[in-house]
Amino acid sequence: MSDSEVAEADDEFEVPQLYKYHAFVCLTQRPPGHPRGSCGALGVQPLWDRLTKTIESQRLTDIGVTAAGCFGFCSAGPMMVVYPDGIWYRPTKPEDIDEIVESHFKQGKRVDRLVMVLKR
Amino acid sequence: MSDSEVAEADDEFEVPQLYKYHAFVCLTQRPPGHPRGSCGALGVQPLWDRLTKTIESQRLTDIGVTAAGCFGFCSAGPMMVVYPDGIWYRPTKPEDIDEIVESHFKQGKRVDRLVMVLKR
Repeated sequence: MSDSEVAEADDEFEVPQLYKYHAFVCLTQRPPGHPRGSCGALGVQPLWDRLTKTIESQRLTDIGVTAAGCFGFCSAGPMMVVYPDGIWYRPTKPEDIDEIVESHFKQGKRVDRLVMVLKR
Repeated sequence: MSDSEVAEADDEFEVPQLYKYHAFVCLTQRPPGHPRGSCGALGVQPLWDRLTKTIESQRLTDIGVTAAGCFGFCSAGPMMVVYPDGIWYRPTKPEDIDEIVESHFKQGKRVDRLVMVLKR
């Protein structure tokens, strides 16, 4: 991500969107055998690496990617959520990341086979 | 956040939103004097504590709050972003957090005085 200019806001105004899509990926790492498990223990690291490298190498500057802490659904990982859509994905392989990038981020088409429907 | 039920998805379907609003707060902590600074160095911790305690004590279960890593705008912190709106806030006092909760999360009214307009 690049440097920024920050403008203080006045009152009523339109706020332009910083990103077309903004993905948050849980990188929580708990030790092996921890009863809650974690996205880290479920193998998120290579997926995160793939995602950040792909976004950078393809210069997808309108896609934000940010590491996140625990979402509270620890058995369901690896987890990522894509906003503004509010779509939760469970990628498990690098190819899943590639498909999310190609389909969702570049074509605006949700990858149904990777979607998780979560309930509070 | 509570336990979850996870349903695997089929094909074409409506995805219900897990949260009405989902806030991500950068908790990156760099040591004092680090040239990039950090939201941690800019005092985010008591704001995070205020936010999570308020959400919990008021039982605002339709509001998600998640810790985030660096957003890449390190001089602009403390930073939080609220989705699905894609509104970036710079709260600096506990009262700012209270106002975001009362106005944005509970009434759907953006807190203009705390908005940051960021450029990539």
